Amino acid sequence: MKIELGEPPIRVPGFRFAGVHCGIKESGRPDLALICADRPVPAALAFTTNRVKAAPVLVGLERARRRPLRLQAIVVNSGNANAFTGEQGLADARAMCRMVAAEIGIREGHVLPCSTGRIGVPLAMQAVERGIRAAARALSPDGFHCALGAILTTDAFPKFAVRHVEWNGASLTVTGMAKGAGMIAPNMRVPPHATLLAYLFTDAKLDDAALARILRAGLPCSFNAAVVDGDTSTNDTVVLLASGAAEHPPLSPRSPLFARLQQAFREVMEELARFVVMDGEGATRLVVIDVEGARSRQDAERAADAVARSPLCKAAFHGADPYMGRVVCALGYSGAVFEPKRLRIWLDDLEVVRGGQERVAGVEAQAMSIVAQKEFRLRIDLGAGKASSRRFCSDLTTEYVRFNSAYRT
Amino acid sequence: MKIELGEPPIRVPGFRFAGVHCGIKESGRPDLALICADRPVPAALAFTTNRVKAAPVLVGLERARRRPLRLQAIVVNSGNANAFTGEQGLADARAMCRMVAAEIGIREGHVLPCSTGRIGVPLAMQAVERGIRAAARALSPDGFHCALGAILTTDAFPKFAVRHVEWNGASLTVTGMAKGAGMIAPNMRVPPHATLLAYLFTDAKLDDAALARILRAGLPCSFNAAVVDGDTSTNDTVVLLASGAAEHPPLSPRSPLFARLQQAFREVMEELARFVVMDGEGATRLVVIDVEGARSRQDAERAADAVARSPLCKAAFHGADPYMGRVVCALGYSGAVFEPKRLRIWLDDLEVVRGGQERVAGVEAQAMSIVAQKEFRLRIDLGAGKASSRRFCSDLTTEYVRFNSAYRT
Repeated sequence: MKIELGEPPIRVPGFRFAGVHCGIKESGRPDLALICADRPVPAALAFTTNRVKAAPVLVGLERARRRPLRLQAIVVNSGNANAFTGEQGLADARAMCRMVAAEIGIREGHVLPCSTGRIGVPLAMQAVERGIRAAARALSPDGFHCALGAILTTDAFPKFAVRHVEWNGASLTVTGMAKGAGMIAPNMRVPPHATLLAYLFTDAKLDDAALARILRAGLPCSFNAAVVDGDTSTNDTVVLLASGAAEHPPLSPRSPLFARLQQAFREVMEELARFVVMDGEGATRLVVIDVEGARSRQDAERAADAVARSPLCKAAFHGADPYMGRVVCALGYSGAVFEPKRLRIWLDDLEVVRGGQERVAGVEAQAMSIVAQKEFRLRIDLGAGKASSRRFCSDLTTEYVRFNSAYRT
Repeated sequence: MKIELGEPPIRVPGFRFAGVHCGIKESGRPDLALICADRPVPAALAFTTNRVKAAPVLVGLERARRRPLRLQAIVVNSGNANAFTGEQGLADARAMCRMVAAEIGIREGHVLPCSTGRIGVPLAMQAVERGIRAAARALSPDGFHCALGAILTTDAFPKFAVRHVEWNGASLTVTGMAKGAGMIAPNMRVPPHATLLAYLFTDAKLDDAALARILRAGLPCSFNAAVVDGDTSTNDTVVLLASGAAEHPPLSPRSPLFARLQQAFREVMEELARFVVMDGEGATRLVVIDVEGARSRQDAERAADAVARSPLCKAAFHGADPYMGRVVCALGYSGAVFEPKRLRIWLDDLEVVRGGQERVAGVEAQAMSIVAQKEFRLRIDLGAGKASSRRFCSDLTTEYVRFNSAYRT
């Protein structure tokens, strides 16, 4: 997870990466990333469902309509979200693509722009232009971590994950990088929906339809399950790219290799989503909320979301307080249909709610030690049906509030 | 708002009040209140919409079904919510009514029980019984502030408001008391829906239908507009009682006196709701969010709620940061339909969003000074219709998190 000095760089055959500082961030940290495939490659995209979509998301949605869906480059600036920036913002997002296309000699329509940072501020295009030139020269198969470093904003650490799928003596790679710590809440669709940015790469031969299928199946239990604050960003974007540089026969969705690649993508997506929640601004704990026994999928999601977003539940998690009353209260106002008497709740494997009553009293020390862990599972059975839903949520800390009330300065 | 020593007591002809300490709260503070009318009087009730309803709320809902709806006493314990306490909890809530009925010689069905405090803990009924006996002996026309003191939990100050309606040389009184600082979010209905507890009294002659009409009309812009954390409690209850002790002819809903009484109730309800938000756990600011131009009432409420509950917006309010990007983002994921280009936002009278762009840049110092006030108005025009909705919300502070992660201890 953390980059260790001397660690071998992450490589995915068919892709080159770069990250530079161009002056968007006043801190002097890297703020422009460029990722480039050797040729236009199959892609799958997911974007935020927020009604206020950042300019680069609007451009991305245009790209997402093409069939077959192919991309060759992703250009990302951090430090400015280019969101709610009007016509000028849209022109700037298109200009980023045009600059990349000219600089590395590819088609503008094969470039996806992304931005993350402050909303409502015009993009410093002179800096962006400088950055794109420098990044184009710096592109390298070994530049994965440079690119990752340049997409970060409030992140405390870079997020990446790797899986290898062995096949016929060869090794296929599935890898991903992500940024995001605040303004994190689950609501993406494929297309058109994900300030989480996540980019996943493979050298396997997968077409755009296969990638879309993998992305759609993987989102609910990964990025769409990640809740830091419940604020769904204007810029969330997830991209899957497959260079096809590996040597293997064409894959049908029924082939065992496809299943293994899908599993590898699923694992990388979940790992990245967990990192985002662990890095939730000020977070000290990760709580896995599993709602089962819901009447419908929507009810399961409502119930899980209510607990994952409740300031009272999240503050109790922070305080290592197994106060199930707050969880029960959140479930009660979630809108999910259930009978309080049939509700059951477990902390890890310890049953703490049954028969319309809290049962912490007898097992308080054990309950407290579970909730005091860096990670624990809150399993909720609504007793109303068979649908389920999962959320990864962070606790609510004084650090979160301090950080977000002083973000501007 | 604050009780000053030497202030004359609040009196409402026809009502007596008492508040005692019986041992539910370990702190030794008052924890049982009793309010009693001289005879069964017209009442209107509103309760929480939470699916997990506290035992006293379940009993209250039974009372609310009677026509005409009359009550003679309200018994309230603080320090324990008697919520999620199973069959025993329900039996305890009924026992509270029975004890009051026996102690002061009235009908059990004319007693409304209320509880507020920790969820999931059995009620200490021996203490309650002691408290009811002591309170019954202490009932006094001058006991308003004693009763109010005994319903408080995490409140930093008691909330009350008074209006007088002059009529024909006489003075009618409309007054109210409320508790509540956390687990505050708008979702009450009449009947059946308000851990806010609020009790309003008048000596005017109003029947139960008139009171219900006043309550229903008053809720949306008062208690239902109050948001501290967005957690809708299991125990919220609002009660209106009219003793009819005043001398005036029968009132039709069209009479000018009815209108003036309704206005007095509206003002008392709004004042109490504002106090609850000002006392929001750790709060330092009150933000009045007015959404206008929504396509529907539901859209207006969704938009106002998203901003009022967004941790990022609330943290920015705390930091006196006029970061409209977070407000625009919250509106965008609220579910309300609008066109970002048509969105307009004002801080007090200062326009800060128009034409799909933030316009704080030119007026930053002015915007910052508005947001730094103890109270300011955030006016949002979605430009999509004619519906509107209001919320009173508090900011999110480190104190809120500290308090709620250490509530148990």
